[in-house]
Amino acid sequence: MNFIDKLLSSARSNESLLCIGLDPDPELMPPGVSVLEFNEAIVEATYDLVCAYKPNLAFYEAMGVEGLRTLAATVGCIPDTVPVIGDAKRGDIGNTAKAYARALFEGYGFDAVTVNPYLGGDSIDPFVEYEDKGVFILCRTSNPGSADLQELKVGKRLLYEVVAKKALEWSKHGNIGLVVGATYPDDIKRVRGICPDMPILIPGVGKQGGDLAAAARNGVDVNQEKAIINSSRGIIFASKGKDFAEAARVEAMKIRDEINRCLKGG
Amino acid sequence: MNFIDKLLSSARSNESLLCIGLDPDPELMPPGVSVLEFNEAIVEATYDLVCAYKPNLAFYEAMGVEGLRTLAATVGCIPDTVPVIGDAKRGDIGNTAKAYARALFEGYGFDAVTVNPYLGGDSIDPFVEYEDKGVFILCRTSNPGSADLQELKVGKRLLYEVVAKKALEWSKHGNIGLVVGATYPDDIKRVRGICPDMPILIPGVGKQGGDLAAAARNGVDVNQEKAIINSSRGIIFASKGKDFAEAARVEAMKIRDEINRCLKGG
Repeated sequence: MNFIDKLLSSARSNESLLCIGLDPDPELMPPGVSVLEFNEAIVEATYDLVCAYKPNLAFYEAMGVEGLRTLAATVGCIPDTVPVIGDAKRGDIGNTAKAYARALFEGYGFDAVTVNPYLGGDSIDPFVEYEDKGVFILCRTSNPGSADLQELKVGKRLLYEVVAKKALEWSKHGNIGLVVGATYPDDIKRVRGICPDMPILIPGVGKQGGDLAAAARNGVDVNQEKAIINSSRGIIFASKGKDFAEAARVEAMKIRDEINRCLKGG
Repeated sequence: MNFIDKLLSSARSNESLLCIGLDPDPELMPPGVSVLEFNEAIVEATYDLVCAYKPNLAFYEAMGVEGLRTLAATVGCIPDTVPVIGDAKRGDIGNTAKAYARALFEGYGFDAVTVNPYLGGDSIDPFVEYEDKGVFILCRTSNPGSADLQELKVGKRLLYEVVAKKALEWSKHGNIGLVVGATYPDDIKRVRGICPDMPILIPGVGKQGGDLAAAARNGVDVNQEKAIINSSRGIIFASKGKDFAEAARVEAMKIRDEINRCLKGG
C-alpha cells in the first residue's frame, strides 16, 4: 500500500489526525527505562489513537551508533497499519540525495520522510522516485527564525508560498506533502489554498504553543482529511513515573478528541 | 586551536587549497578493500597535499549502522593537523538542532559542518555556539536545480545573495563560512564580494564540471586564502586497481598544483 493510502486508512480506522513524535530525551524519560523500551511502551499504548508516528533522527543520532540501532528497532515495533514518517529534513544533490533516500526508505523502511527544499527540485527527485513513499517538503517551519528566509518577498508571494507552488510541479507521482508549523495557522490556510489535495504535516502544537483548533481547521482538505498534526513532548513525556505509557495514552486521546471536536464544530 | 586557525595552518603548511571529499561508493572502489581501509589509504597518501577532508554523511548512512562506525573511525584516522568538515547539510529547530550539533561536533568530532539556511538563524545558532567549530551555510549549491530557489529575486538581490548577507549577521563568533558551487564561478565572485573574510567551501570541480581556475581565483580572499576547493570522485576513484591510493595522490597533487598555478597567474 502506498503512503497516502496507508495514511488515510490509519486516520480513518483510528478516527485520528494525531501524529506522535517519538523524540526521546534521556533527561525527560522515566529513570531505568531504555529508549527502545520507552518507545515500545509508548507505541503499544497509543497505536490505536494516531494516524502516524514521526521519529526525528536528530535525537537518535545524538546517541551515536547505538541510537541508530534503537531507531531501526523502533520503526520495527510500529504496527504495519500505521505509517512512520522519518523526520530527517535532508537535502543534498544527485548521488548524495540518492544515498540518503536509500538509507531512509530502504535502510530504515520509513513510509515517508521530510526534506529541505533549498537545493531545488533535482535534490528532491531521488526521494520522489520512490513512488510508494511520501515526501514532505519543509515549507513554513514552526520556529521564530523561519521568518528569516521563508517570509522573504518574492514578487507578490512570500518564499514559503513559492515553495508550496513548486511542490505542486515537483509532485509528479502525487506523493509530495508539505510541512507547515501550527504556530502560523494563517499560513496553513494559505498553503492549503495553494495545495488543496496535499497532505500537510503540522508540527508545533503542545510545547511550542501552536493553536490546535486553528491548525486543525486550516490544515484539513475538503474531506476533513490529510492534515497530520504532530505532538511530541506533550504526549510522550506526560509523566516521568512508571505510568508514563498510560499518561501518554490519556494525553494522546485528549488531543485526538480535541482535534475531532474542533473539526465537527468548524 | 579553532577551526579557522587550523584551516589556515594546514593550507599554509601543505601549500594547498584542496579539500578531498571522502565519499566512498562500493561500486567504484577497488574490490576486496573495506571502506575504512580505503579511506585510511587515501588519507595516508594525501594528508600532506590538502587543507581539509570532507566526508559526506549520506554515503556512510547508506551503509547502515556499520557505515557510521566507519565514519567515526575515518575521522579518527585523519591527522590532527588537518581539519575535517562533516558534510551533513543539517537544518532543524531548537532542541533538535542542538541534538544534531552535539552528534556532529561531540560525537564524531568534526572541526566544521555544513548546514542548510532555510529554517533561519535560530536553526543555525546551536552550531555557531560551538565557537571553536566552523559552520558552512549552503548558499549557492552546484546542482542545476539550485536555481529553483536560490536564484529567486528578492528585492534587488537573488536569494543566495540574501543568504550570504544574513550569514554575516549570524556569524557572531566569526565561525561561519559559505558553500558556493564551482559550477557558478561568477556567483562565487559575488559572494566573495559580500563576505570578503569568510571561508568559502567550493564543491563541484572534477566530475561535476566546475571551472577550477575561475573557482580558485574568485573564491580566495585578498590574501589568496580561505577558499576550500573540494574534489571527491575525481581523486579518490582515480584508479580501481591496487594502486588506488598512489593514483589518488597523483591526482590530488595535480589539482593542488593547478590551483596554485592559477592563483599565481591571476
